[in-house]
Amino acid sequence: MSCQSSEELNELLLEAKHYTKYGTVADYIPALKKANPHDLSAAIYYPDGTCLSAGDIQQKMTLQSISKVLTLALALMDCGEESVFHKVGYEPTGDPFHSILKLELNNPSKPLNPMINAGALAVTHMIKGKNIEERFQRILHFVHELTGNSKITYSQEVAKSEFETSFINRSLCYYMKQDGIITEDVEELICLYTKQCAIELDCFDLARIGVVFAMDGVEPMTGKRLLPADIARLCKTFMVTCGMYNASGEFASKVGIPAKSGVSGGIMGAVPNRLGIGVFGPALDHKGNSIAGVKLLEMLSKKYSWSMF
Amino acid sequence: MSCQSSEELNELLLEAKHYTKYGTVADYIPALKKANPHDLSAAIYYPDGTCLSAGDIQQKMTLQSISKVLTLALALMDCGEESVFHKVGYEPTGDPFHSILKLELNNPSKPLNPMINAGALAVTHMIKGKNIEERFQRILHFVHELTGNSKITYSQEVAKSEFETSFINRSLCYYMKQDGIITEDVEELICLYTKQCAIELDCFDLARIGVVFAMDGVEPMTGKRLLPADIARLCKTFMVTCGMYNASGEFASKVGIPAKSGVSGGIMGAVPNRLGIGVFGPALDHKGNSIAGVKLLEMLSKKYSWSMF
Amino acid sequence: MSCQSSEELNELLLEAKHYTKYGTVADYIPALKKANPHDLSAAIYYPDGTCLSAGDIQQKMTLQSISKVLTLALALMDCGEESVFHKVGYEPTGDPFHSILKLELNNPSKPLNPMINAGALAVTHMIKGKNIEERFQRILHFVHELTGNSKITYSQEVAKSEFETSFINRSLCYYMKQDGIITEDVEELICLYTKQCAIELDCFDLARIGVVFAMDGVEPMTGKRLLPADIARLCKTFMVTCGMYNASGEFASKVGIPAKSGVSGGIMGAVPNRLGIGVFGPALDHKGNSIAGVKLLEMLSKKYSWSMF
Amino acid sequence: MSCQSSEELNELLLEAKHYTKYGTVADYIPALKKANPHDLSAAIYYPDGTCLSAGDIQQKMTLQSISKVLTLALALMDCGEESVFHKVGYEPTGDPFHSILKLELNNPSKPLNPMINAGALAVTHMIKGKNIEERFQRILHFVHELTGNSKITYSQEVAKSEFETSFINRSLCYYMKQDGIITEDVEELICLYTKQCAIELDCFDLARIGVVFAMDGVEPMTGKRLLPADIARLCKTFMVTCGMYNASGEFASKVGIPAKSGVSGGIMGAVPNRLGIGVFGPALDHKGNSIAGVKLLEMLSKKYSWSMF
Repeated sequence: MSCQSSEELNELLLEAKHYTKYGTVADYIPALKKANPHDLSAAIYYPDGTCLSAGDIQQKMTLQSISKVLTLALALMDCGEESVFHKVGYEPTGDPFHSILKLELNNPSKPLNPMINAGALAVTHMIKGKNIEERFQRILHFVHELTGNSKITYSQEVAKSEFETSFINRSLCYYMKQDGIITEDVEELICLYTKQCAIELDCFDLARIGVVFAMDGVEPMTGKRLLPADIARLCKTFMVTCGMYNASGEFASKVGIPAKSGVSGGIMGAVPNRLGIGVFGPALDHKGNSIAGVKLLEMLSKKYSWSMF
Repeated sequence: MSCQSSEELNELLLEAKHYTKYGTVADYIPALKKANPHDLSAAIYYPDGTCLSAGDIQQKMTLQSISKVLTLALALMDCGEESVFHKVGYEPTGDPFHSILKLELNNPSKPLNPMINAGALAVTHMIKGKNIEERFQRILHFVHELTGNSKITYSQEVAKSEFETSFINRSLCYYMKQDGIITEDVEELICLYTKQCAIELDCFDLARIGVVFAMDGVEPMTGKRLLPADIARLCKTFMVTCGMYNASGEFASKVGIPAKSGVSGGIMGAVPNRLGIGVFGPALDHKGNSIAGVKLLEMLSKKYSWSMF
Repeated sequence: MSCQSSEELNELLLEAKHYTKYGTVADYIPALKKANPHDLSAAIYYPDGTCLSAGDIQQKMTLQSISKVLTLALALMDCGEESVFHKVGYEPTGDPFHSILKLELNNPSKPLNPMINAGALAVTHMIKGKNIEERFQRILHFVHELTGNSKITYSQEVAKSEFETSFINRSLCYYMKQDGIITEDVEELICLYTKQCAIELDCFDLARIGVVFAMDGVEPMTGKRLLPADIARLCKTFMVTCGMYNASGEFASKVGIPAKSGVSGGIMGAVPNRLGIGVFGPALDHKGNSIAGVKLLEMLSKKYSWSMF
Repeated sequence: MSCQSSEELNELLLEAKHYTKYGTVADYIPALKKANPHDLSAAIYYPDGTCLSAGDIQQKMTLQSISKVLTLALALMDCGEESVFHKVGYEPTGDPFHSILKLELNNPSKPLNPMINAGALAVTHMIKGKNIEERFQRILHFVHELTGNSKITYSQEVAKSEFETSFINRSLCYYMKQDGIITEDVEELICLYTKQCAIELDCFDLARIGVVFAMDGVEPMTGKRLLPADIARLCKTFMVTCGMYNASGEFASKVGIPAKSGVSGGIMGAVPNRLGIGVFGPALDHKGNSIAGVKLLEMLSKKYSWSMF
């Protein structure tokens, strides 16, 4: 059984919305502070093109950590699995996303997985292109393909705000530069990374990205393959084991779908072979996930048996 | 398509067997050192009762960490999800299974998940019974039910050997006793825990346990429900995110099935709705998983499309 | 210039006493909770036998961590410097006294110094004797010699209370047992260790111990050498670098004398070639040192130029 | 009794020189790799102006971490003790000098002491001046005063080499920038820091710096006070507790004098009220101290009773 109508979706959304009051908007990136903590919107996209939505679906958000899945896919297409995992590990971690501990404790140092900041920076470092601009255009183009929406661009304000305050990310980069994981100029990499994080879209777009992953890399309406099946599946594996920061285990237990969240409050989910879902709710729990967004996904998963487990 | 015959299974097993030479038998538990590093055997059990096998299927092994899944299931039946996860977390960790770091670093201290030693000890602590003996008999009885084999008992030699050398486990217990996670006598808990680890069975038995988890808790031949579906599914979630020690992420990427390994060289796997599998290969890789066993599962998963992802 | 009279000492003590209100009595050892947080007493002992005192000098306290210096001296006499430092390091640490982190992070594992709990347990393990009782009598006898007070004994109540609640110490012991640092029965070692911590004396006694260290091992009135000069000096080195828990650096900067504190609120200090001092003030700061005791020593050091630096 | 002649010093130096073969020249700063591992030279400077020397005394070295003591003194004069220790701690640490762990683990984050890289960077950040150039000239001028040698300058080659490879130091700076410990531009601070590390001098110069600290801040020949006594003494305290990296405890036990070493192989020592000593031996032990230099100081301390303890 599937969620059949936007009304059904809206009913659950209204219930989940009560949880927004227990969360807080991310404040470590100045430009994110402006979000309204009470917002909550969601869109579901089925392979047959049906689309349901609830909440103020016009609301835009920046990709933030959700971009980590897309750059991982791109880096895998650019460099192959072996090269990518020569520089970054496969393993989930109980540490917070911006932790630097393991870089010092593990020797030789290698970020544990591509979904924590250190790993994502190492992955973006591997994306090919003549220069930062070309590399960013490749990422953006990939987003256009995945969403079918070529109007998507990035928020210069958010990118600038993050660029100016990304001290921990620079700290992670220099630590990895010492160990040869990163070889390019750190300021350039941070510039590219903050732009990828600042790509701006809405729940519809996220749901369309989700359905491509759900269908193992094929855009279901056009039948066009946007990424190889094995790469899509590898990405979904990381979404399950590390997609929701250090709450991934609990999310796998309670929701059980591949998903990736960002500190903007976005969540992109993929229910294998069934649907893609995009959620936006900027009030976050203390681990950095949309507090009402997670609740909504939990209710949907229970009601419509989405869990893979 | 399924693996149709023991011959097919045997062919892959012979290929995987080449990898035994790159592993070493666990040496930190004296009684495990006697194992032959070149052994490799496997059994597959289908819901229709068909059973395939390859290698010296008579070989017995002790459950070791595989028992962590079974005690988790039992504790969940005894105490409920909320109580259990009040004392142990849901999150995978990049640390080795016997690590104590996080108990000091996380405050209040709580083992990150039930598949690392600290978490498994906290889980066994929650299993109900008048005394150690009764609690152990309940675990053993649960193994009898899951395997349909009431002859299974435990190796007194292995239990004794582990009891005498379980210093890190005692260290973990006392640390948790300080924080109120464990309240019973540590020597008694270690006695119970080493017995559960020393339960002795073979690949057939493991495969039959696997099929029960694969069928969400129902023994497929008898149709008898041995554990509630939600508990079976929760256990499978942990098997995916943390079942293969700190190689769980790589195993999820390359094999993609819920599985749990033990330092004896056993692996119990569950391919949802399709089959259970038991593998025994005592030569371990440096993270503590059967090196040839993992290889065999990787080949099987690729050939017969077992991955959930 | 020296502190010439008990009146002078008392004046400073009354000033220091104001700080007792900012501290709290140790609560992790049940028997210590009974102490009056407003108590503060001190005694100074000069090599010529002059003794000054202030406060309620009858007040008794247990040695707690102060005993670590005495067992270090005894172990060095029993086993020699090389053997002792084969099992324990020379280095101060920024970690709290009961931390277990470094035992896992440093490989091979060895407690960083003899003044943290792990190191002190390893040192007590090295004290010779047929059995626990004989080893304890040797420690007690050493205290009798150092203080010239053969009536000193231990508080059975405190020893019992600590024995029953020493979970972290047991955790540290078992971790070290795994690494071969400790080889004896852990319960026996904890029994011995909690007794040494429960030896009960007053400020006079502490001051007399201090003067022996100040005089490089010679009891100044009798001229009797109680420990070799090089051992006395080694002990004073550790008192400077690690004697005041993870506030030793600040204490060295502000007071500058070899000193060792205990969570009972005692501090034993040795001003080289000049005097010994004993202080008792059970209200502790957050690092475990007597808050008013440290203040008193700071005032005395400033006024009478005690600092070695 | 003092070391009376250069011949006496030379005798011990020749003996210590045998240890150079067990060490290796620092290789993480490219420009340091060129040093001859077999070099060893030393100079002793007495308050009366007598100077002894042994070995090839013309050999120049860069200050490296020895500069940390001088910038600490300068920052204390610029900002006062309270301000300085608002941003950096007093406590020794068992971690290596470039460790970042504690910055993440301690919250709020503050480098443990001014002798580890994080702390030294925070200290240099506090040195006043209109710009990098003026701040550097102030440091250099202070070195001229301390040594009485106004010809001293810095090695542009070493500064450039370190500037280009100081990735861990940048990582530490950005981490501290996140926490507000450092507020200036990181590249500028690294530029200043690498210049201070590249100040080039010889053993005579080091010995003259040492004697000023030995005399509590007064240049003994001229009688001119170069720094306040309490600052000189505070610096000596840190030299004892943290001056020799994470071998400071062992050095305090075996040598017992305030000293600071650098990875160039230099050691500056101060025997309170007696003498200053400079040693240069580029072959390092695994903790980063001159292996033969430490041996020489140990022999000198034993023979001439230099230890403060």
